[in-house]
Amino acid sequence: MIIVIQCIDRVGLVAAISGVLAQQQLNIVSLREHVDKTENRFFLRVQVEQEADAAGIAKSLQAVLPPDAAIVVDPLPQKKIVVMVTKEYHCLGDMLIRHYFKTLGAHIQAVIGNYDTLQDICGRFDVPFHHVPHHEALKAVFEEQIKDCIAQYAPDYIVLAKFMRILSPAFVAAFPGRIINIHHSFLPAFAGANPYRQAFERGVKLIGATAHFVTNDLDEGPIIAQQIIPVTHSLTASDMMRAGKEIETAVLAKALRLVFDDRVFVYNNKTVVFE
Amino acid sequence: MIIVIQCIDRVGLVAAISGVLAQQQLNIVSLREHVDKTENRFFLRVQVEQEADAAGIAKSLQAVLPPDAAIVVDPLPQKKIVVMVTKEYHCLGDMLIRHYFKTLGAHIQAVIGNYDTLQDICGRFDVPFHHVPHHEALKAVFEEQIKDCIAQYAPDYIVLAKFMRILSPAFVAAFPGRIINIHHSFLPAFAGANPYRQAFERGVKLIGATAHFVTNDLDEGPIIAQQIIPVTHSLTASDMMRAGKEIETAVLAKALRLVFDDRVFVYNNKTVVFE
Amino acid sequence: MIIVIQCIDRVGLVAAISGVLAQQQLNIVSLREHVDKTENRFFLRVQVEQEADAAGIAKSLQAVLPPDAAIVVDPLPQKKIVVMVTKEYHCLGDMLIRHYFKTLGAHIQAVIGNYDTLQDICGRFDVPFHHVPHHEALKAVFEEQIKDCIAQYAPDYIVLAKFMRILSPAFVAAFPGRIINIHHSFLPAFAGANPYRQAFERGVKLIGATAHFVTNDLDEGPIIAQQIIPVTHSLTASDMMRAGKEIETAVLAKALRLVFDDRVFVYNNKTVVFE
Amino acid sequence: MIIVIQCIDRVGLVAAISGVLAQQQLNIVSLREHVDKTENRFFLRVQVEQEADAAGIAKSLQAVLPPDAAIVVDPLPQKKIVVMVTKEYHCLGDMLIRHYFKTLGAHIQAVIGNYDTLQDICGRFDVPFHHVPHHEALKAVFEEQIKDCIAQYAPDYIVLAKFMRILSPAFVAAFPGRIINIHHSFLPAFAGANPYRQAFERGVKLIGATAHFVTNDLDEGPIIAQQIIPVTHSLTASDMMRAGKEIETAVLAKALRLVFDDRVFVYNNKTVVFE
Repeated sequence: MIIVIQCIDRVGLVAAISGVLAQQQLNIVSLREHVDKTENRFFLRVQVEQEADAAGIAKSLQAVLPPDAAIVVDPLPQKKIVVMVTKEYHCLGDMLIRHYFKTLGAHIQAVIGNYDTLQDICGRFDVPFHHVPHHEALKAVFEEQIKDCIAQYAPDYIVLAKFMRILSPAFVAAFPGRIINIHHSFLPAFAGANPYRQAFERGVKLIGATAHFVTNDLDEGPIIAQQIIPVTHSLTASDMMRAGKEIETAVLAKALRLVFDDRVFVYNNKTVVFE
Repeated sequence: MIIVIQCIDRVGLVAAISGVLAQQQLNIVSLREHVDKTENRFFLRVQVEQEADAAGIAKSLQAVLPPDAAIVVDPLPQKKIVVMVTKEYHCLGDMLIRHYFKTLGAHIQAVIGNYDTLQDICGRFDVPFHHVPHHEALKAVFEEQIKDCIAQYAPDYIVLAKFMRILSPAFVAAFPGRIINIHHSFLPAFAGANPYRQAFERGVKLIGATAHFVTNDLDEGPIIAQQIIPVTHSLTASDMMRAGKEIETAVLAKALRLVFDDRVFVYNNKTVVFE
Repeated sequence: MIIVIQCIDRVGLVAAISGVLAQQQLNIVSLREHVDKTENRFFLRVQVEQEADAAGIAKSLQAVLPPDAAIVVDPLPQKKIVVMVTKEYHCLGDMLIRHYFKTLGAHIQAVIGNYDTLQDICGRFDVPFHHVPHHEALKAVFEEQIKDCIAQYAPDYIVLAKFMRILSPAFVAAFPGRIINIHHSFLPAFAGANPYRQAFERGVKLIGATAHFVTNDLDEGPIIAQQIIPVTHSLTASDMMRAGKEIETAVLAKALRLVFDDRVFVYNNKTVVFE
Repeated sequence: MIIVIQCIDRVGLVAAISGVLAQQQLNIVSLREHVDKTENRFFLRVQVEQEADAAGIAKSLQAVLPPDAAIVVDPLPQKKIVVMVTKEYHCLGDMLIRHYFKTLGAHIQAVIGNYDTLQDICGRFDVPFHHVPHHEALKAVFEEQIKDCIAQYAPDYIVLAKFMRILSPAFVAAFPGRIINIHHSFLPAFAGANPYRQAFERGVKLIGATAHFVTNDLDEGPIIAQQIIPVTHSLTASDMMRAGKEIETAVLAKALRLVFDDRVFVYNNKTVVFE
């Protein structure tokens, strides 16, 4: 059983929490704690050996923790997600394979694409695909259609698996802290469009990818995971794009595993990740 | 203030430990806990914000922990070490620079070499150098001389920074868990002599280095840190040796930092490392 | 157009080869050359801008190169392969996705499994699947059935994508230099069975994967690509196995890309890889 | 013997160059060639087995290459360098150790510091140290003093090993393509001041370092080498700075090795690096 807690820091929190667990004869097999001194915030993830009465433990913890404490006891092991895509297949393909073999850690309820390019591959895995074409002049309408589509699924998270349209602040605000994006650069380098072209022109020797939560500021949300691969002068911008797809796939897979496994805390535009 | 604890596992250990700290109004800023279920052992490293009466806390902890508990409260921030070398300079050079600028985390009391190659560099840093030549026929005498030399310093650790003679079980037994070695391969691959030659002949695409505690079984002690670098067909065995020196230096530096910072627990020929 | 050449080394080979190309007004955009001095062998891969008469160029090259020269001008861009699997899906899944989106660089003619676990996923991608169960007592019969199955496809390469049966020397001899395997360890460490269990018990801090050509000596064939990921004390043997699958998938994908792109030369149980 | 050539691209260059070498009975052991199609530029580095008449070969090559060809035959194996520093020791310390053991690939003629912090360490290695204090109001004077100091040494390269003053365009123009800097971030991310503070505040999961040639645009010159290390939420800005020093040292060491080994070509604000 997993318990995750975020609250204001004060003396005695670990004693209070572990005291509650010890009273229930629960054995802690792994405990990660972090205090951000600049923000005075406390983060804890604890894994206990036994299953127990989750609601009862949450109530006991609430009684000994600060009033602002966000406590989750025994989170759902299988999150529900909706995936949004454009034309590129690599991230979605990887997710569909893991989903099919039940190692994604989440249930893909549906895929929404602003092109129908990836409809067939979804069909092959019996995953519903919704084609919602975008219309430049009517972004609000486009986003409303997506929201309607999402509404029927009530997902825990929305995963932008190479969805190449910029979402409005209004859309993002409708799913606070619940939209995960893969950006095809090592943020904050090369934010914005065509990062591989930018990287090629700058002559960098490494390219990267960044998985992050989406906030109103484009490419500025809390970072979950990043990785890089070395590149050389011999790669063109399109070679870099191809090489980058490998790392994009790997980084998004890692970030999703961490989030679905309740290892990621968000606060103050940063994440605490207990890997 | 740092506290490190290793003992048999049982329910309530974290509660007991954090209870002691809370009673003293000590605020935990970082806590790492690990339980090895197969061995039923408990490991904990906790950092508290304030300084406090170390002896008193150790006593209070002893009262609430299993009898076998190894408890260290407020370990010495500056360990004492003796370094043993042969002819290669790269690891020693790196250590001398860090030592001189007080970022090694340890005090180098002396360097012992079975050749005098590195005497001059030690002299430039005002570090005592003892030349103890080896004699094939009289290994016992050789080791006795080294032991005598070490005895005058009573070091916390002995660091084999590219010391190329094999030490006898008797020697190793005199310093249990206190000898750290850098091996020039990614153990357990290429244990023994000439690992770069072996790696070249096998045609591997990565070479590595391993820092480990020394036990009676050659190259079989508990591993502290490992790293690798990619290699290609274009490297000769001696190119690999040169490239390997970079990674040897980095891995030993990392392992020493972890050990000197009280982040490494040893048990059952393995390590728990709270990075 | 790509040209690859392997032969005994002698003075003037690059001049001879580039002279042939210059005569045809072919512009070299990328040239990689390597000489193994210990073996006195010459390897070259050259990419020219224009298409040209492949047979004519091969003939002209033959006239100026040593008699032992292996010359391939304009190799087939799309290799034919048969994939062999057991129960694990991760490598095959990745290959099927790339195959479906035409980025594998090869055509998967069929998949052969000694279990039928992966039959359904192959069906979803319209790739023929042959179930050839193994029988301990009749290994020769088992391998004969596989050979018959392969015979109808005449593949360029056979890819062992987590095929967990050991193939006999006779089988391997039937496809010299054409069987590619992914081994779930950083060879030569942990050759043989259960490498993750071995790695866990040894307490290593890195685990890896190795893609190699298969020869008669188990896990001893020429290495194409290797990669590693860091692990910690907190991973069990089965956690390592899960983590290792990610790297196995990535390493096999990389090795296949290199082989299918005619960047790998084999000789003397080693590879020259012009990445 | 090494030969490096950069010129405009045209058909037949490799044939012309290797023809000259074959005529002299010189055996090519390693050849790297790259053509930048967007810029129509040709780069080549070739290593031949034998020593030969360098001037004669250069002349023969000039006769068969485009008039703009930059040809270096048998470059000096030991470059002369002046190092500029401020207070941080890690890059200089590493260079001094390599220099002392003759593996730097260059001769350190002198070190110039705007503080005298690193005077003692230079003295220990018998390397001249010049203390040139900066004066905010008189930057031109400060730089004039540095130039005078450098003038007496006529170095091939000036290495900024954590020199923390911004150099004026006039200063940079005096040493075109000959100033190498280590920047403490993964450029172009976090250009400018306090990159570790910036990285901490952005919550990145990787930090890096970049070695580059200095041009008039601050932190915008051609990149030679970059590397990264992973970081977590548990690191403060000053922890990141400490961790970053390791990678700064490694990246600068690598970049210097590549430059001193004549493996780096500069053009169009990029580098071609034949590793």
